[in-house]
Amino acid sequence: MQTPSHRCRWASLPSPSVREAASMYGTAVAVFLVILVAALQGSAPPESPFPYRIPLDPEGALELSWNVSYSQEAVHFQLLARRLRAGLLFGMSDRGELENADLVVLWTDGDSAYFADAWSDRKGQVHLDAQQDYQLLQAQRTPEGLALLFKRPFATCDPKDYLIEDGTVHLVYGILAEPFQSLEAINTSGLQTGLQRVQLLKPDVPTPAVPSDTRTMEIRAPDVLIPDRETTYWCYITELPQDFSRHHIVMYEPVITAGNEALVHHMEVFQCAAEFDSFPHFSGRCDSKMKPDRLKYCRHVLAAWALGAKAFYYPEEAGVVFGGPGSSRFLRLEVHYHNPLHLKDRRDSSGIRLYYTATLRRFDAGIMELGLVYTPVMAVPPRESSFVLTGYCTDKCTQLALPRSGIHIFASQLHTHLAGRKVVTVLVRDGREREIVNRDNHYSPHFQEIRTLKKVVSVHPGDVLITSCTYNTQDREQATVGGLGTEDEMCVNYVHYYPRTELELCKSAVDAGFLQKYFHLVNGFNSQDVCTCPQASVPEQFASVPWNSFNRDVLQALYGFAPISMHCNKSSAVRFQGQWNLQPLPEIISTLEEPTPQCPAIQCPSPAGPTVVSIAGSKS
Amino acid sequence: MQTPSHRCRWASLPSPSVREAASMYGTAVAVFLVILVAALQGSAPPESPFPYRIPLDPEGALELSWNVSYSQEAVHFQLLARRLRAGLLFGMSDRGELENADLVVLWTDGDSAYFADAWSDRKGQVHLDAQQDYQLLQAQRTPEGLALLFKRPFATCDPKDYLIEDGTVHLVYGILAEPFQSLEAINTSGLQTGLQRVQLLKPDVPTPAVPSDTRTMEIRAPDVLIPDRETTYWCYITELPQDFSRHHIVMYEPVITAGNEALVHHMEVFQCAAEFDSFPHFSGRCDSKMKPDRLKYCRHVLAAWALGAKAFYYPEEAGVVFGGPGSSRFLRLEVHYHNPLHLKDRRDSSGIRLYYTATLRRFDAGIMELGLVYTPVMAVPPRESSFVLTGYCTDKCTQLALPRSGIHIFASQLHTHLAGRKVVTVLVRDGREREIVNRDNHYSPHFQEIRTLKKVVSVHPGDVLITSCTYNTQDREQATVGGLGTEDEMCVNYVHYYPRTELELCKSAVDAGFLQKYFHLVNGFNSQDVCTCPQASVPEQFASVPWNSFNRDVLQALYGFAPISMHCNKSSAVRFQGQWNLQPLPEIISTLEEPTPQCPAIQCPSPAGPTVVSIAGSKS
Repeated sequence: MQTPSHRCRWASLPSPSVREAASMYGTAVAVFLVILVAALQGSAPPESPFPYRIPLDPEGALELSWNVSYSQEAVHFQLLARRLRAGLLFGMSDRGELENADLVVLWTDGDSAYFADAWSDRKGQVHLDAQQDYQLLQAQRTPEGLALLFKRPFATCDPKDYLIEDGTVHLVYGILAEPFQSLEAINTSGLQTGLQRVQLLKPDVPTPAVPSDTRTMEIRAPDVLIPDRETTYWCYITELPQDFSRHHIVMYEPVITAGNEALVHHMEVFQCAAEFDSFPHFSGRCDSKMKPDRLKYCRHVLAAWALGAKAFYYPEEAGVVFGGPGSSRFLRLEVHYHNPLHLKDRRDSSGIRLYYTATLRRFDAGIMELGLVYTPVMAVPPRESSFVLTGYCTDKCTQLALPRSGIHIFASQLHTHLAGRKVVTVLVRDGREREIVNRDNHYSPHFQEIRTLKKVVSVHPGDVLITSCTYNTQDREQATVGGLGTEDEMCVNYVHYYPRTELELCKSAVDAGFLQKYFHLVNGFNSQDVCTCPQASVPEQFASVPWNSFNRDVLQALYGFAPISMHCNKSSAVRFQGQWNLQPLPEIISTLEEPTPQCPAIQCPSPAGPTVVSIAGSKS
Repeated sequence: MQTPSHRCRWASLPSPSVREAASMYGTAVAVFLVILVAALQGSAPPESPFPYRIPLDPEGALELSWNVSYSQEAVHFQLLARRLRAGLLFGMSDRGELENADLVVLWTDGDSAYFADAWSDRKGQVHLDAQQDYQLLQAQRTPEGLALLFKRPFATCDPKDYLIEDGTVHLVYGILAEPFQSLEAINTSGLQTGLQRVQLLKPDVPTPAVPSDTRTMEIRAPDVLIPDRETTYWCYITELPQDFSRHHIVMYEPVITAGNEALVHHMEVFQCAAEFDSFPHFSGRCDSKMKPDRLKYCRHVLAAWALGAKAFYYPEEAGVVFGGPGSSRFLRLEVHYHNPLHLKDRRDSSGIRLYYTATLRRFDAGIMELGLVYTPVMAVPPRESSFVLTGYCTDKCTQLALPRSGIHIFASQLHTHLAGRKVVTVLVRDGREREIVNRDNHYSPHFQEIRTLKKVVSVHPGDVLITSCTYNTQDREQATVGGLGTEDEMCVNYVHYYPRTELELCKSAVDAGFLQKYFHLVNGFNSQDVCTCPQASVPEQFASVPWNSFNRDVLQALYGFAPISMHCNKSSAVRFQGQWNLQPLPEIISTLEEPTPQCPAIQCPSPAGPTVVSIAGSKS
């Protein structure tokens, strides 16, 4: 069997550069690669359409739709290219770079058009993959542009391929403006490129039913003029009606102003603190000097949406308390506008539509904070590519604070500041790692969604929850300490669960006395001046450590050995009763095995190289 | 295309157990799976025969021959099964265990016979590989038994497959005594199994010419009665004729007594020290109480052979000095007999045949010792699965001791004691790792060959040679310190090179003062008693360390940071002049990238499952 190999005909010469290129090859080259339906090989696309869609570039010229088949362990992609020039690159990479990326390439040599599974090396040079794992299923001309339908298994066992796993995926693209004689002639460094973060492997959970008496409320930006700067966080204060009684929020969904799909990056609705009777109204940039100081008390997350996410549903048994006594009427909407092209005169009324019911569900849903206490005793040395800090929620705390029947975690939002690269929370029972609560191996602080878990995780009294964050400080000269500042770091997993308990915070930090032993030891070993005087603050002490491999390794050893101080708190200020200092680190006697990726069975015949894409000359 | 699928016929019922099994399936089962020539698929075997051969089991019933194609990056195996019962397993694993092994399985369900690429899990349960990478080329009945010809790429990119790489490979086998209904019904734990260590990827270097005036001398065991115990090291002293003048050894090869191929495990010829005029004659077990004490001065390696090795050739430009003034006339032959079946009445005259010439070659060959000094300051904590110790040959030493034109390393013998698991030596120039001198990721202290390098490595003055050994001390309760004793450890690479220089030893150890800082620090941090009193020896100090993750990690950090003491010696007692204490660790600014295994192009059609092996009923 051979793959079909039709020659192409090109039409319509739009731009001088492309025209020149075309004449080089003596053939007419099209801006629009007008491709007729060409079912090339392999299985037909599945029945279902593509439930997920995201613009890749700021102009929305490239749009990706996809679905996920957990039974096939594969993703079907439909890539719509609205104004295609001579081809494109699309793929994935660790953190959105175009180097070391796993790519599909659609290109033309000025004569034929080709589709291939490829990869780029650390210099951006594109190479053909030995194994062709992206399978082109259809190339179709549509009124909107060229639609490419292709499929890829989660894991391919080709060492040059990206492993599609849970959490954030950094999609990358590149625009080919001219023909290339061969795939190997392409280097990503000279192209117009970009990245888009997305949760590719959306959970495949049934949508809970919504009660018939459900009502909606839209918390939307008040016709904001989007600033013509790359990054804007817009803050808007609104309020519930007077005497708004107790309800349950059962779902919410984004409301995006038409045309702004590529500009609205993420949105969050926060509830203000109940301790204040009123909050000033405000609509403006969150970093504005005019922003009332009191708005910093509007930090309790009620709803969060990020690019690529769809509606968020609470489990059928639970809802979030909304209104009624003991909760503030004031809400803060925060919208992150991402406008790298500095578009002007764009107005926006995007926001979140809350669905709530007066028929209270059986359980209130709650949010619990796992990870590290915001304290400088947890620090990352400078110039580290992947330094791990770990926070514990100990058996002693869960024993005391959780109901006997346990709690059920159904969603999770991971949080670090700018140095965060990975976050994971593992459930440990009887010293054995049992399951992953949530993991993101490609975490980005610029993409913090509330994610519904694929599987509800039940936590019993006596269980341990261990949250580890991996940081990159290669661009820093000083240690990065834990804290609230943007330049400080955090390691947090906000878990959404039911039934709500009093436990709001279950976090840890290394014992401060043992950290002083470390400074003392570093001082003695290195015969250099590390300030261990009691009047120096911990950040000052860290700033005076002469960083070398020994001091770094010993800090790491300390964090892996020294006892911890626990925050097992009802609210950020009120602890459960008990002795929480000098607690031993939870002992782990067995760890979860990394699942070996299932290599897909080899499909024969499998193309050894690029596929020729059949193209006809008509223009849309 | 489909693979041929012939039914089999069985003949001859030899043993009750097999007969029972056969009747279970209502079919006659053969002891001898008499298989007619059945060229199944794929490319024909290469023209060349199989230059390498090794018995797998102590009785030699399973014999493996193989060749290596570096252009195809594949090994062709021919497995001869002399008295096959109902099938066999053959494969490779990390250290010779039958669990987590990469296997081919030939089995019968009592009806047909099958061949498949499989793997065993950590419980020994056998599973079919998703990707079938062992390719059966031929199954042939020969007068000696069943010969299976199959092929495997070095790397397959199937995560369940063993990566065939340089150095030691642990071959494993298992005997199937009865039919199995399916592959998944096989568990290796119930089978007769065994292992054989071998260097599978023999270097593909041209054989140097041997001068016409070459003469031979055989250093052979004097008709020894092999003891009926599993392990015997036999020592035999012999001597060169009086006034034997200066020669060059240019090659040597093993001489194995016929029938003892599976018993003679390895042999070495040592030259005695020139400082003694005579040595007592002796023939007996090396651990015999009767062995004269002076024989411990016979330790300079002249020739070494181990199972699976062929003739050893010196490069055309160099030879080993043999005879003449300044070298001892006395030689010690050491033969390691491996007799796990406790065979009795076996006599042996195996040994090594030396080829030497009076026409001296341009260069004398020499041996240099790289790695760690034999000192207790280098220690491995207990219960470690892979703890690395590193020894350095610094730029300062090579600058001083090597000729301006450099030296050329052509062979290497790695050495550790019982805890050694991996050894590697890397050449570093200008702070950058340049090439691997020798590496064994599956090193075994029970298999220490002199190995010809695939590529001669030239070392210039100013180069650095870094030798790292990985140890496993999971079965130990106390720290393992460096030293000469069997329970102590070593990390040595004996490199064979030319032209011979005065530099015999280029090794290092951590600075003793910094180690005392470590003991002091451990004492202070742990608030426990670590003896730092000056009268305690280093082994005593290590024995008193309360081992926990912190003390372990800090020791590792110390070895990666603290200055070293260099032995840059002419002989083990005489140093080159210079300051060798408190030397900085060589700085490495770039490391060698691990080569990504080249996944072989997928050959289509590729079998998705077991291949039915066609079998005829005639008996040999």
